[in-house]
Amino acid sequence: MNESVKSKARPGATSDREEGGAFDPNFGADGLATCVTVDASSGDVLMVAHMNEAALRATLATGIVHYWSRSRGALWRKGDTSGQTQTLVEMRVDCDQDAFLAFVTVGGDGGACHTGRRSCFYRRVETVGETARLTFIEAPSANG
Amino acid sequence: MNESVKSKARPGATSDREEGGAFDPNFGADGLATCVTVDASSGDVLMVAHMNEAALRATLATGIVHYWSRSRGALWRKGDTSGQTQTLVEMRVDCDQDAFLAFVTVGGDGGACHTGRRSCFYRRVETVGETARLTFIEAPSANG
Repeated sequence: MNESVKSKARPGATSDREEGGAFDPNFGADGLATCVTVDASSGDVLMVAHMNEAALRATLATGIVHYWSRSRGALWRKGDTSGQTQTLVEMRVDCDQDAFLAFVTVGGDGGACHTGRRSCFYRRVETVGETARLTFIEAPSANG
Repeated sequence: MNESVKSKARPGATSDREEGGAFDPNFGADGLATCVTVDASSGDVLMVAHMNEAALRATLATGIVHYWSRSRGALWRKGDTSGQTQTLVEMRVDCDQDAFLAFVTVGGDGGACHTGRRSCFYRRVETVGETARLTFIEAPSANG
């Protein structure tokens, strides 16, 4: 995967997928692709989850973000339980179309993490020599 | 996975992993975890890739981001070929410790995508009725 894709300048599956206008999502052997979800107003990364084709379709059709819950093995309309509905503002796809970037507006209390925090990435990895520890950068919210 | 983890208020594997200070990354059955890489100055998401334990260790030990290349089946120090080295500014981990968020400074021409673009997410998904098409939001760079 490098400049050869472009310099060959001939049509091909990789080139089409990377340089074309066709949306041809590349779900893995498990039927899933990664979705990175970002707060549309702050630009902060909120969470990483997975979508299968049904979740992607439902997201694009309704404008409400759906994932595939690997732990429950079920389609998951985020916010159905928590109220933290994610309204899609913009969806992007990466070069090889196996990852999505969803810009969202979060409903409810504005959180995305099941722990009650705004973002799932609430801890920083700190290394001291060969040891790594975690430092909290976001405390749990009141409803956590 | 919800508030029950907290309301039970007893120690357990899930609670420790989510609310503790121990860095205990949760690599999948394939030995990989997802890494979302963000430009430390702009906050823009540049790419999504994977790390195995060796890539994570190398990243933390050297301060230069390493991934695991699934296509090549090899440890991949980003930038070795392209010059687009990623210097780690900050690393975060998500609630269940199976995804990392790397804030980086990009060397070389500042790009992260093998197509020559700054970000791998250079296309927006546009839906018209039931059809989805891609619109380019970043043209290839001169070196692409």
